[in-house]
Amino acid sequence: MAGQGSARFLQDGKNKYIPYQQLFNRITKVQVPGYGEYEGYANRDSLKYIDTYQLHDIKTMVRGTLRNKGFCAAWNIFVQLGCCDDTYEMEDVSTMTHQDFIDAFLADKKGKTTEQTLCDHFHLANHSPEIRNIKWSGFFTDEPVGLSKGTPAQVLEHILNKKWKLDPSDQDQIVMWHRFVYEQEGKTKEIQSSLVATGSDSVYTAMAKTVGLPLAIAAKLLMQQKINSRGVVIPTTPEFYEPVLAELKNLGIAFSEI
Amino acid sequence: MAGQGSARFLQDGKNKYIPYQQLFNRITKVQVPGYGEYEGYANRDSLKYIDTYQLHDIKTMVRGTLRNKGFCAAWNIFVQLGCCDDTYEMEDVSTMTHQDFIDAFLADKKGKTTEQTLCDHFHLANHSPEIRNIKWSGFFTDEPVGLSKGTPAQVLEHILNKKWKLDPSDQDQIVMWHRFVYEQEGKTKEIQSSLVATGSDSVYTAMAKTVGLPLAIAAKLLMQQKINSRGVVIPTTPEFYEPVLAELKNLGIAFSEI
Repeated sequence: MAGQGSARFLQDGKNKYIPYQQLFNRITKVQVPGYGEYEGYANRDSLKYIDTYQLHDIKTMVRGTLRNKGFCAAWNIFVQLGCCDDTYEMEDVSTMTHQDFIDAFLADKKGKTTEQTLCDHFHLANHSPEIRNIKWSGFFTDEPVGLSKGTPAQVLEHILNKKWKLDPSDQDQIVMWHRFVYEQEGKTKEIQSSLVATGSDSVYTAMAKTVGLPLAIAAKLLMQQKINSRGVVIPTTPEFYEPVLAELKNLGIAFSEI
Repeated sequence: MAGQGSARFLQDGKNKYIPYQQLFNRITKVQVPGYGEYEGYANRDSLKYIDTYQLHDIKTMVRGTLRNKGFCAAWNIFVQLGCCDDTYEMEDVSTMTHQDFIDAFLADKKGKTTEQTLCDHFHLANHSPEIRNIKWSGFFTDEPVGLSKGTPAQVLEHILNKKWKLDPSDQDQIVMWHRFVYEQEGKTKEIQSSLVATGSDSVYTAMAKTVGLPLAIAAKLLMQQKINSRGVVIPTTPEFYEPVLAELKNLGIAFSEI
């Protein structure tokens, strides 16, 4: 869904909107202490978390996604071409190759290669990071897509899944970063809180740990009768987050604050 | 709807797609004999007319919209900002002014005017045609929008309708232009056929004449029992187009071919 849907957020008390096709142009550089620089872009709807976190007087509220440096510029190529569109079925998907897919969004190649046509279209050099990333991902080959039908977004995802997969010993990494600016006794203060989790391998991923462990810990607390809430609840009360965060810390998953 | 939906067409036997946010970047200059240069951009779906016109072996088929020079660059500002989005309701429309509407799609103004922030965002000069057109259309004023709610596209349309209306003595103009490239006896040939109709005033518009007169002529032919077709039919048979085009010519609405 990256590259679909307008983003909305609150800035200095004003509602702000960014259309999906501009999201990857309007990135914010984020320094995560100890881990360097990432690229942040606004998520679809930051406002719905105002209720969740009970922040009703808040003036600025932005939630976003962090990517490694260079991701957004390369992904923006797909967005600008129209490859992320999920609203219509393409023609002739069953006989389409990877580069046919890219060609469908470009003007006449006039005898040039797909790579060169793409470079010319976006005024990029062949050795630019964007073009090298797209080339690495396999988009300039004659390999058949391997789908019988599909929207642009479905074809894009299918091609990406061939290269963008974890090898058995690959390690994923999850980076969270929060910045809170607030006033206390007339002074403006700031807290930055970040969490970085790294997977052990392609099974015990950071994604699996950060999704699975909090749930497992909460289940244990429930069985130990240390939780009084009932029904479907979210862990925004101390009853949940204090013991869960404490045990996560022992498992190597911890926020650090500055 | 201008600036919504991907365009698709056929070029040299290949399906081509242009996402809506690129339509106004990928314009084709069209010279209409006797009337100068226009800007053409691809319509949503050119392929559906292949059946209508029984052109099943055609290799290239593009239908598009013509605009006066400068229109597309100015309209593209609205598209890139996200003003043409019709998929979500904006907040606080009831208290919104024209420039609040533009501000909602821009980053923090940092004390600058809306006009200057827009110029900086798109790297345009204040005297550029794009900015002058948007200024003329009233987008940098504190006038209330005057709607209680609305999507970006609805707010945009409402603001535009205040300035973009025909005064009693204004004359609209419709420009059609076709280019047919074909082979005959082994030779590549070309016909260009164009029609320009100008309104008399804000009631007897070119739009009214070109929509109403063909229908009136067809109704007369039907009453004179000169038409044998029955049911809902389109005028792609000589029974319709020969007498209708002949009478339109007498009324000053005629195609010229070169």
